[in-house]
Amino acid sequence: MCAKAVALAARPEGMPKTSDFQIVEVESNDPTDGEIQVKNICMSVDPYMRGRMVDRKSYVPPFQIGEPLTGGAIGKVIKSAHPDFKEGDFVSSHWGWRDGFTARADGIERLGEIVAPASEYLGAIGMPGMTAYAGLLEVGALKDGETVFVSGAAGAVGSIVGQIAKLKNCHVIGSAGSEEKVDLLTKELGFDSAFNYNDGNLLSHLRELAPEGIDVYFDNVGAEHLEAALMCMRPFGRIPLCGAIATYNDTAPRPGPNNLSMAIGLGLTLRGFIVTHFNHMKDQFRKDMETWVTKGEIVTKETTYEGIESAGDAFIGLFTGANTGKMIVNL
Amino acid sequence: MCAKAVALAARPEGMPKTSDFQIVEVESNDPTDGEIQVKNICMSVDPYMRGRMVDRKSYVPPFQIGEPLTGGAIGKVIKSAHPDFKEGDFVSSHWGWRDGFTARADGIERLGEIVAPASEYLGAIGMPGMTAYAGLLEVGALKDGETVFVSGAAGAVGSIVGQIAKLKNCHVIGSAGSEEKVDLLTKELGFDSAFNYNDGNLLSHLRELAPEGIDVYFDNVGAEHLEAALMCMRPFGRIPLCGAIATYNDTAPRPGPNNLSMAIGLGLTLRGFIVTHFNHMKDQFRKDMETWVTKGEIVTKETTYEGIESAGDAFIGLFTGANTGKMIVNL
Repeated sequence: MCAKAVALAARPEGMPKTSDFQIVEVESNDPTDGEIQVKNICMSVDPYMRGRMVDRKSYVPPFQIGEPLTGGAIGKVIKSAHPDFKEGDFVSSHWGWRDGFTARADGIERLGEIVAPASEYLGAIGMPGMTAYAGLLEVGALKDGETVFVSGAAGAVGSIVGQIAKLKNCHVIGSAGSEEKVDLLTKELGFDSAFNYNDGNLLSHLRELAPEGIDVYFDNVGAEHLEAALMCMRPFGRIPLCGAIATYNDTAPRPGPNNLSMAIGLGLTLRGFIVTHFNHMKDQFRKDMETWVTKGEIVTKETTYEGIESAGDAFIGLFTGANTGKMIVNL
Repeated sequence: MCAKAVALAARPEGMPKTSDFQIVEVESNDPTDGEIQVKNICMSVDPYMRGRMVDRKSYVPPFQIGEPLTGGAIGKVIKSAHPDFKEGDFVSSHWGWRDGFTARADGIERLGEIVAPASEYLGAIGMPGMTAYAGLLEVGALKDGETVFVSGAAGAVGSIVGQIAKLKNCHVIGSAGSEEKVDLLTKELGFDSAFNYNDGNLLSHLRELAPEGIDVYFDNVGAEHLEAALMCMRPFGRIPLCGAIATYNDTAPRPGPNNLSMAIGLGLTLRGFIVTHFNHMKDQFRKDMETWVTKGEIVTKETTYEGIESAGDAFIGLFTGANTGKMIVNL
């Protein structure tokens, strides 16, 4: 039996394009000892994958041309040769970018009972939600009542960051790339204020919306956003460095913030992290987030593409602002 | 009675020059209720003072033209009208840049018994030593046996950072601005290796001397030093941001490191600090450092200028590399 997968046809230069991706067939045979065969329900495209398309040393190895890409996916076991998995089980795996697979079950997570739609386990209850949770509460050491600024606030991570901060009684400001997204943040997701970063000067927006300064800046964007936020930080503020999507398609290094030395007098902490550094918080996270999502205390937003053939375009959409909330490809 | 003091004649543009400073006379009358009259023995010039010469908001207010400058000084009480101070007491004050003063005793530190020459209490056993101690052990969260890189390593702070790290069994690499200073670091101060940052490419030096990477980079310099160090950090490395002397005389903002996003995958922490954030460690610091200095476990270096008239030139020398170790003006 065969499954369809997406492979890198060429390494993107700058902004990825449709022709950088191609559909290939991969084998998905009957499982043998210790393996399971899975039909994927939906898959994730995430900004970090852009880094893996470049041939360089990083915290995950680069993708290879012609080889199927990988990434988060939720699927259902259709045949099992592993004692811990049975037909019909939901699983979370890194075998995304394909509509099905057969693989050793080690390293594949059996989700057990799921209380929300499968795609939530790629979003709010999955990696982006966990990134928001660990980044804000642990890396950002958030305290009740503080002022929080999150960039890329309508994205999969940012939209959860802002809502967790609201649950912690914080004053929350978000930036996003369109008026529609700004409306979403303030009218549906409960942000105290938000601005369109394509409209006017970042620093003026921030100074107006956070006149007394920022305690935690959750950085999804890097570049000018980080520079503007540094100008507004309060003493002993924290800056979780989560992503720098503004720079991921740069073909040459871009200068960093010219005011990093402000961190000295103010005693600021900038701390980079990736979600896997915080696996010890996973159980608590799932418990908290399932509660928040099912009670509607956290509102989740998805942008969906249909079919494996659309996965490349869904990925490109992450950089053009096509997504509001989590970008999902239904398979 | 009058004392001589140094005032700002003009705000320096870029590198300060002798004519930016002028000698003025200040009153130092007999002390009245709660005051003490002090003859200064020696005073400190420090890089952070450059920031106070600019008319902008910072963690300390700017100096005013024509007004005497202030800074660390060690002196001896000559007359006292305060019950806690008596003639002959050594005091540490912020009434530097003058050969004597009369002032309220509140906020002036009585040193009690001193076990080393007075100038050490402006250096290793004073603010620069405390900066090194808190920055390395607390901000840098140094662990035994790690690899430490310190820039500006022949300076007042850097020379102590490297030696504390050696006392903690670390592998220590330093950068300095001349071959003589490099020799000092490796031959007299016990650094494992050192390089001249004016000779060749920073990154090549670092990669050669720290082939397995850096756990703690103590940043006194900023700019290109920080960018090069970021390329060599080990996972979960820490970067205490102590100073950015490379940029203090810039007349326009200088771009920051173009590789700050490396902090994300590696889980790096960059944390700015100033010494006064760590006053709670002061007693432990003095006890430890007096022991290390008097036993010769930490070697201290001074560059001295003589007389209040030389204070401006001593300050300028901080930026031209004229000092090895602590820069002291004897009064």
